[in-house]
Amino acid sequence: MSYVRNAWYVAGWTPDLLVDTPTAIVVLGDPIVLWRGADGVVTALEDRCVHRLAPLSLGRCEGDKLRCMYHGLLFDRSGAVVEIPGQDLIPAQARVRRYPVVERHSWIWVWMGAAEADERLIPPAVGVDHPDFILGRGNLDYAAEARLINDNLLDFSHLSYVHAASFGSPESWARERPKITPLERGVRVERWVAGESVIPGQGAGKPIERYATYDFLIPGILLMTGGCYPVGTSAALGGAAPNLEEAESGVTFTSQAVTPMTGKTSRYFFSWGPHRQHGDEVLRDTLMGIAGMAFGEDKVMIEAQQRVIDATVNPRIMPTTADRAVTLFNRLVDKLAREEAVPMRAAS
Amino acid sequence: MSYVRNAWYVAGWTPDLLVDTPTAIVVLGDPIVLWRGADGVVTALEDRCVHRLAPLSLGRCEGDKLRCMYHGLLFDRSGAVVEIPGQDLIPAQARVRRYPVVERHSWIWVWMGAAEADERLIPPAVGVDHPDFILGRGNLDYAAEARLINDNLLDFSHLSYVHAASFGSPESWARERPKITPLERGVRVERWVAGESVIPGQGAGKPIERYATYDFLIPGILLMTGGCYPVGTSAALGGAAPNLEEAESGVTFTSQAVTPMTGKTSRYFFSWGPHRQHGDEVLRDTLMGIAGMAFGEDKVMIEAQQRVIDATVNPRIMPTTADRAVTLFNRLVDKLAREEAVPMRAAS
Amino acid sequence: MSYVRNAWYVAGWTPDLLVDTPTAIVVLGDPIVLWRGADGVVTALEDRCVHRLAPLSLGRCEGDKLRCMYHGLLFDRSGAVVEIPGQDLIPAQARVRRYPVVERHSWIWVWMGAAEADERLIPPAVGVDHPDFILGRGNLDYAAEARLINDNLLDFSHLSYVHAASFGSPESWARERPKITPLERGVRVERWVAGESVIPGQGAGKPIERYATYDFLIPGILLMTGGCYPVGTSAALGGAAPNLEEAESGVTFTSQAVTPMTGKTSRYFFSWGPHRQHGDEVLRDTLMGIAGMAFGEDKVMIEAQQRVIDATVNPRIMPTTADRAVTLFNRLVDKLAREEAVPMRAAS
Repeated sequence: MSYVRNAWYVAGWTPDLLVDTPTAIVVLGDPIVLWRGADGVVTALEDRCVHRLAPLSLGRCEGDKLRCMYHGLLFDRSGAVVEIPGQDLIPAQARVRRYPVVERHSWIWVWMGAAEADERLIPPAVGVDHPDFILGRGNLDYAAEARLINDNLLDFSHLSYVHAASFGSPESWARERPKITPLERGVRVERWVAGESVIPGQGAGKPIERYATYDFLIPGILLMTGGCYPVGTSAALGGAAPNLEEAESGVTFTSQAVTPMTGKTSRYFFSWGPHRQHGDEVLRDTLMGIAGMAFGEDKVMIEAQQRVIDATVNPRIMPTTADRAVTLFNRLVDKLAREEAVPMRAAS
Repeated sequence: MSYVRNAWYVAGWTPDLLVDTPTAIVVLGDPIVLWRGADGVVTALEDRCVHRLAPLSLGRCEGDKLRCMYHGLLFDRSGAVVEIPGQDLIPAQARVRRYPVVERHSWIWVWMGAAEADERLIPPAVGVDHPDFILGRGNLDYAAEARLINDNLLDFSHLSYVHAASFGSPESWARERPKITPLERGVRVERWVAGESVIPGQGAGKPIERYATYDFLIPGILLMTGGCYPVGTSAALGGAAPNLEEAESGVTFTSQAVTPMTGKTSRYFFSWGPHRQHGDEVLRDTLMGIAGMAFGEDKVMIEAQQRVIDATVNPRIMPTTADRAVTLFNRLVDKLAREEAVPMRAAS
Repeated sequence: MSYVRNAWYVAGWTPDLLVDTPTAIVVLGDPIVLWRGADGVVTALEDRCVHRLAPLSLGRCEGDKLRCMYHGLLFDRSGAVVEIPGQDLIPAQARVRRYPVVERHSWIWVWMGAAEADERLIPPAVGVDHPDFILGRGNLDYAAEARLINDNLLDFSHLSYVHAASFGSPESWARERPKITPLERGVRVERWVAGESVIPGQGAGKPIERYATYDFLIPGILLMTGGCYPVGTSAALGGAAPNLEEAESGVTFTSQAVTPMTGKTSRYFFSWGPHRQHGDEVLRDTLMGIAGMAFGEDKVMIEAQQRVIDATVNPRIMPTTADRAVTLFNRLVDKLAREEAVPMRAAS
């Protein structure tokens, strides 16, 4: 199972990381401590003291530094040990790895790779503080590898079966194939779905057509918007994208991030809500209730799938025509992972 | 640890498998989904979708078919995929393994082997619907390999120690050796036990002699009957089998099945109760209460034994003369397992 | 991870081992059953029946013997099988390992090595029945290897950080280096600590100086005493040891034992309390409350440290100058472990 390391992974929510409160997260198997100083600056270090491997996330913030609370070694923001109590000399190798970290769109992004961090690669998520949207947020831990969650998000044919109860998705989600466009760092998935009459948060009514479009970007970020239109709109547009501002249902936006923690555990971050001109806090809370139910449905299925895979000697899949975005994205991940592995091999 | 695969394993109770309710069971490491259609017919398939390995036991029954509820693939009773939503062509390899399944004697029997299923090999258990007996039933999961439970059931010398509290078994169970007869697919164990004065379900009274006989059959099925007689009956009969209908205590019957799930987990199915002419529902419930206590005593001992074995680098046993039926049965299992392995190697 | 086997390990508290009540403990990976006969004598045997590996700790005491309660084999105090129900001949190899066992200082000590047991190597702990002290006692299980707990106890610089809340230890514990003296079977650690004003059990008051001295002995036994003195005492004594009887605070004594169970689990035994002339049962209970809080703080840190080590591919430490006693003791363990390994290799 390969993942891209030269990428920004979501390690937490900006509003959840309080000042002077070290927090542990594991990303791609690396234990990381995040902390926010009194000046608001966030630092991400290897969560493992050089001395005897105690976790720095059990440590104490002191100004812009972090003290290991086992035997008192003090680390600065670069990861260097700057104090060993009772000892004058500090060895040059007394430092832990520092991870580049950026707060943007309400998320704390950590750069996991060996290459220089490039902030232009941070996906354009919509933060919960965005002025145009009224968003709720949450996160959910999975006992499953991140790739299985990515696969789930790249193939919405599962909506008809997994989410019939929560989203009220009809079978047309499974039968109609979306338009798929490769992007430099991901895949774009656009679809018109006919046969619907349920607008999440508004209940069942007259038949509608739904337009949904999302980008799924490295390392595992879904950014989706869309809305509902009168029956016939898709045909009138020849299947092209509609003007979102004219959506009958109003427009919603969801940002989602899948972070591999260990090989078999993941954390899933998500926000969802209406455009400020098309809804309010009540609609947002209704949507979040639906999302909570739906993401629980996914979790049951994906963790069960993981258990089956783990119990299978030589697990093999049989792709269907619904898997095109899955296959494109996984090939991109494999390609990028291979490319970043080359210079390391050359260097060693 | 070898098990016979060309055999019928108990996968569940007939009354527990409701219509249109897919149920998961693991047998010999194989994940199996069982379901009963509206016509009452039971099907057993590999519990692993060909597409992305989701468990079919999370699926939905549709007539005589089963739909995977992840992306909607539909399976017929032969295990073939007959529908992929939104896709016209169904690949020939789109099928999961079907297991021969038979309902008989209140149990759902699944054939695990590569050879053709032979219904004549289903052991003659007594179902809970048998007109001659009033039977209670239950099942119990073990965190232990099935062989340890088989060993337990093949050597009743443990009754004197493990079940002194529940069955009230005297030490004579441990001291007297039963008559053991090899069968084509198992072992017959017969014994007269003196020194008893407790009849399960009837409490302690005057001294009696107990006659008990059981067949223990491939793959791990115990079928036992017997009764209590006046002191001296055994001697008068020269140790031969008595006429069961003349038992003072009345006659009871118990059917028990040990199913290996994974290498270290098992499911134990059991029924027990009096002959209709010798008891009633009250006696049946009393016996089931005693059995519940006794089988809990076994579970404590056998799971502890498993933990000791797991913590032992090179576990070795030291057989005693009480182990003859254990040894005979395990040799039979090994012989049958070896024999069925040969054609597979020849074929590959 | 090497441990000394030719040593006495604490396997339990004398008052906890009741007559005729077999008790299981694992020491250095060996399952051991301890039992006390009606005559008060304690026996320690391998907790694994020769027959089918059932644990003897589920057995029944019969006079000075122990019966396996699976199939009834009876063991004497030497570990020999002396009865197999229903079988006349007892094979010569029908015996389990006996461990030399001694009760002393309220602890049950078990000798784990191949060399002859030498009672002179039992460390001079202070039992809870010692006439000079009023001691409370407890024990705590760790999901961590014993060496990490030994390391903790050999370097009290952690008091300033881990135990600031419970013991109220100032930073001077971390900054001042103790006097360390190698012993034949351990290390002596003595220190004067300035800057204190909290006497455990007596609360904060005027500034004091604390003197603390302990021996840490093979295999992992800490024996510590000390007391508090007026500021300036250390300087007046030139840093030498004070007269304990003149301690303003009164004198306390603590005995602690770290027993490796499996490779990653340990049991930690401890007692603490005042000299009878310097305190009472109320002070003892107050101290035990503080100890309970402090040892919980250690457990949180050490188990977290173990998890980080387990998640690290090639874990390496970076010793500081506070680690001298740790290093000395671990070298002694390694040396003794190597020495005892030699004759075994020569013999094989």
